[in-house]
Formats: sequence, C-alpha cells, structure tokens
Amino acid sequence: MLHEIYMQRALELARRGWGTTNPNPLVGAVIVKNGEIIGEGYHKKPGEPHAEINALAQAGKKSEGSTLYVNLEPCSHFGRTAPCTDTLIKAGIKEVVIAMQDPNPEVSGKGIKKLKQAGIKVIEGILEEEAKKLNEIFIKYITSKMPFVVWKCAMTLDGKVATASGDSRWITNEVSREYTHWWRYRVSSIMAGIGTVLADNPNLTVRLPNINVEKQPIRVIVDSFGKTPLNFNVLDTDLSPTIIVASENIAKSKVELFKSKGAEVIITKSKDRVNLPELMAELHNREIDSLLVEGGPTLAASFLEDNLVDKVMIFIAPKIVGGRKAPSAVGGKGVDKLVNAWNLKNISIKRLGEDILIEGYFI
Amino acid sequence: MLHEIYMQRALELARRGWGTTNPNPLVGAVIVKNGEIIGEGYHKKPGEPHAEINALAQAGKKSEGSTLYVNLEPCSHFGRTAPCTDTLIKAGIKEVVIAMQDPNPEVSGKGIKKLKQAGIKVIEGILEEEAKKLNEIFIKYITSKMPFVVWKCAMTLDGKVATASGDSRWITNEVSREYTHWWRYRVSSIMAGIGTVLADNPNLTVRLPNINVEKQPIRVIVDSFGKTPLNFNVLDTDLSPTIIVASENIAKSKVELFKSKGAEVIITKSKDRVNLPELMAELHNREIDSLLVEGGPTLAASFLEDNLVDKVMIFIAPKIVGGRKAPSAVGGKGVDKLVNAWNLKNISIKRLGEDILIEGYFI
Repeated sequence: MLHEIYMQRALELARRGWGTTNPNPLVGAVIVKNGEIIGEGYHKKPGEPHAEINALAQAGKKSEGSTLYVNLEPCSHFGRTAPCTDTLIKAGIKEVVIAMQDPNPEVSGKGIKKLKQAGIKVIEGILEEEAKKLNEIFIKYITSKMPFVVWKCAMTLDGKVATASGDSRWITNEVSREYTHWWRYRVSSIMAGIGTVLADNPNLTVRLPNINVEKQPIRVIVDSFGKTPLNFNVLDTDLSPTIIVASENIAKSKVELFKSKGAEVIITKSKDRVNLPELMAELHNREIDSLLVEGGPTLAASFLEDNLVDKVMIFIAPKIVGGRKAPSAVGGKGVDKLVNAWNLKNISIKRLGEDILIEGYFI
Repeated sequence: MLHEIYMQRALELARRGWGTTNPNPLVGAVIVKNGEIIGEGYHKKPGEPHAEINALAQAGKKSEGSTLYVNLEPCSHFGRTAPCTDTLIKAGIKEVVIAMQDPNPEVSGKGIKKLKQAGIKVIEGILEEEAKKLNEIFIKYITSKMPFVVWKCAMTLDGKVATASGDSRWITNEVSREYTHWWRYRVSSIMAGIGTVLADNPNLTVRLPNINVEKQPIRVIVDSFGKTPLNFNVLDTDLSPTIIVASENIAKSKVELFKSKGAEVIITKSKDRVNLPELMAELHNREIDSLLVEGGPTLAASFLEDNLVDKVMIFIAPKIVGGRKAPSAVGGKGVDKLVNAWNLKNISIKRLGEDILIEGYFI
C-alpha cells in the first residue's frame, strides 16, 4: 500500500506538466527515505530537467540510500538531457519503483536493466493502469508515428449538435466548456473543419481562468478549397499558430494569401476531401503528439471512417431539441448495419454539473 | 437511523408489488416491537388487502403496543377494502412511522389525523424522497387525471435509433432490454406508433425470466388511418389487450375489423394526427395509470410537443453508427432555438453492462 501512496503522489506531480510537456510524457518523481518524502519533482517542458533530476535536486545529499518513485521508467539514453539512470546511480539511490516501462520499443526496459546492473532494486507495475491512462498521448505518439486523436463533441440528450435552424451556442454548460479548454490545453493541436469555421468564426484558443498559457496549441483547419476568409480569427496567427490543410485543387493564390497571414499550408494528395491519414503523418513529422478534433458531423464521420480516432469525449446536456432536420453528432454515410458499428471500449462517465461526459476508446 | 432502516425494509416490501398493484400504489409495511420485526406485508393487487393489514395478520396479537412503518399514509376511507386506520387503532398500534402523505388531495392527511385522534404517535417524512420516487406513477395519476408517461428510447452514442439503412435490432445489450421489460411490467400500458409496428411487427408484451406475468400491460397503437395489418402481433389479443387509436378519418370497415380481432378502438377528435391529450384523458378514464411510450422519432416528438412526457429513459449503447440520414431519437420539427429546448431535471445515470441509462424528469 505504501508503494501505491507514493506513486499516487508521483502521478499528481506528473499532472502538473499538463499542457506544457508535449511531445514529452507527463512524469513525476518522489524520493522517500525512512518513511519521509525528501524530494519531489516533475517534468515541466522539453529541454528542461526530467522529473527524477528535479526530485534529486530537492533531496540533495540525503538521497543516498533512498527510494525513488517515478511513473515512467527512467531514461538511459541521451536526448535533450543526459540519461537519468546515470544520475540516479551516482546519487546512491537504493531502490526505484516504477509504474510503467517506457513505451518506446527502442528503449523500453533498458533503463530498468541499467539500474539493476548497478545493484539498484527495481519494482515495476505500481499503479500501471493509471500511469498508462495519464500518458495515453505519449504512448500512442511514440508507438505509432501518429498523433493521439481525441474526437470531442457536445450534444443534447437526443443526440443533436444544433437545432434545425442551426443554433448551437451553447449546448453544454460552463463546466463542460471549461473542461474542453482543459483538454485544448493538454493537446498540441486542435482541429476544426471549414464548416465550423464559417458558421462560428471560432478562436480555437485555450482560455482557462488562473492559467497563463505560455504556448497555445496549433490550430489545424481542414479547408480543402481554401475558403477560410482572411479576416477570420483562425487566420489571426498572433493568437496562435495555424495550419490550413487543403487538397491539390486549392488555388495557388489562396495558398500565398494564407501564408502572408502567417499560416502554414499543407496540401495532401487528393482532389477533394483532404487525405487524413497523410495529414496525421505530417503532423507527427512536426512533433505534434496529439490532436483534438472539434469539427462538425462531416469531419467526425471522416475521422471515424478512416479509423483515426483514439479517444471519444461526448458531452451530453440534459435537454432535448428534437427535429428531423437537426444535425446529429456524426454525419457522412454511416455504417449500413449495426454489426458494423464503431464500438467503444473502456467507457467512463463523469458528471459536469448537470451535464454528462461519456469517454471511451477505440484503442 | 433505526426509523430509516425499518422504512427501507418497508420500501423493499413495497417493491414486491411491482407490476401488479396498478392503479394502486406500491406499499409495504413493517411492524416492530422491542427492536424486533414481528410482522411484514405488502400490497399485492387491487382488491387484495393493503400492506398494513397483511403485516398485522402476520404479527397477530403481539401487535399491541408496537410501531408500524409504512411508506404511504394509511387510508381512512372505504375503497375496495375497509379503512386501514380503523384496523390499526383496533390492533393497539402505539406508533406509526410514515414516509409520505397520501398524494390524493381529497384524503391527504386524513389518515394521519384519525390516528392522532386515537392517541397514536405519528412520525412523518422518513425516506420521503425515496417513497415519492417509488410511487411516481401513483402520484401523477392521482393528482393530474392523466397517466404517468415514460418515454423510452434506445440509441447509439451518436444519438441514432437506427442505421441509415434502417437497421435497429439491437442497439442496446440484453441487460438494457431486460430492464425495459422490467418497466413494461411496471406500467399499465405500452405505446407504439404505426411506423414501429409496420417496421418491426413487435409483440409489445412483457417477457421476463422467472416472472409469471399474470396481467400483460395494454398495448396502445397510434394508427391514425388504421394501417395495422390484421395478422400482425399487436392484433393477436390472446397475447394481451390492444387499443388502436385512430383519427376521425379511419374507415368504419377498418374499425369493425379491428374490433373483430378483439381490439378496442378509440377515435380522437382530429382529422390526421391523433389528439394525444384527449387520448391521455381516455386512458385515465380506463384506470390506466401509466404509459410507456416506445414509439419512434415522430411519436416521441409529438409527445414532447404536447408536453405529455413525465419521465425519460434513454439507453445509450457505446457504439457509433454515423450517417447524415440515419434517424435520431426525436423527429418532428424540433425547437428553433436552444433556449427553447425541453430541459430535464433530476438526472440519474446507471450502467447496464456496457450500456448507459440516463433517466430524467419533466415534472
């Protein structure tokens, strides 16, 4: 039980990196000696020290003969910083308790091996499930060469995302909307389709009370034919960076205009609809580890058809709007038979005030 | 706390009348003396003894000087049986603990008054909320001259009740379907529209493992122009009674044919769509205290537009089918603006295996 308590604390510390560590994992570390916490640390952002190093710095010389708790296997290779394993060995750590191995197949297990070779006792698998959930983005990113894709949708209890007349602001309550911003903060990029942009002229930025957002997520606008008006918020690149994704049929003059606004333009190999799998690879190449899809029914359908969604977040407001012509959450053709439905796993439910959040996974 | 424990037991006993007491309330009674339960009873069905009488019968002469727990105020009037208050007084009951007063405005409080006049101590309001929820049907029926209307719907996580091709069997899992049958058992009548009847040829009967259903709920089919085929299951009145509800434009020959099959025909004052408020009054006249609406999107929209729904039960399967043309839970015109949405209160959530049940109220 003591292992779980200290690991819980390490996970709490790890969570402090929420929104700033991407594309690195969220990692927290706790150093314990004689039943007392003598050092704590977490990883804040790429290029800055890893959690273990921060915890060691706090513990100082007392760390000799102590136990280190960390939610991810310590690294044994040179990245942007020196290997943590070496520093742990040098500090005289006696025991290392780990929640999960590094998911990167090229380094997984190597840190543990190095620690053991130095005579350090290693315990694995403490709160492993929680640790994997916390770093679901990193795991997907590092193992698949694709960003972790979250599809988010706000709907009424009867499955509508707007009334028949198109009224969609706001379906959910303030708690739900703040929760969405908390996830915008978590990810490296946010996507909307041209339909949503034209209808709502959204900012697609993170706005959270009491949080100074140092780095806004990149806005990715799926706009096959370059219809985004130049004076719209998503082309105000002082707010945050923007990528316009188009098909080969976009006019070259449009591309130049978007670039003149400071946006990047990615043209995928397709004549009409953007090629999403190709786009996902392009995002990965840019070290974008995660994407929050906030598009409408058509974009949602495209992502589902291409099997690109990893996590689903459905916010349900306890209201009914009805309407045969009111749009529902997923458009497109849909599946023909129920047996072909996209089935979600690991469903969890949260109450957000009167709203309900249902989360599920395809991976 | 002791009061709550015995009242909890009374509520448990009351629940044994689930499916058989309509249009009477669910009532359970416990008789306690010197910290020991000496008698228990519940109301089984109209015409049979009330819960208090059954509990007294079990306690026998020991009931003198004891405390009675009952979830509903004992009756003080002659109905199908003699007043319970008289019997309680005669048995020498010392104290009566009640969860809720009788909701019938004509008798509410009279039983309590009579007990007090006889020198019996009366304690009220123990587990009152639970008791009101248990008898939500009775409360609505007795105070409004309308049946308690439950709208039930099974949908996917993206709000669809069928795929674009019309495949709708089955959206939810077996646990959800059994739960629905448990509610069919609870109510006096079940409604479907002609669209559902023509599409699925349903039985609309209660089928529950280990339960011998003595009395099937009445099937109410909304069929304005009398399109139900004579060989369809809902016209097999050996299974359960059927009411066909039509508009004034139904052919007289059709009415006769339906009657020849053993069905009752109610014609509401309307030329096309059935007049639902008039129908509700008609059902109340027949001592139908409750109606489970299992119709499709159009019928659901009509009930919502007429503000006739009391309780909503939405079963959500953790799957996505998509499809711009796939029907969603509520059709009709729908509301124009979100501020005009039908807002649900007292939301509760249950997990039924992997499915999710969201319940809410308009009253």
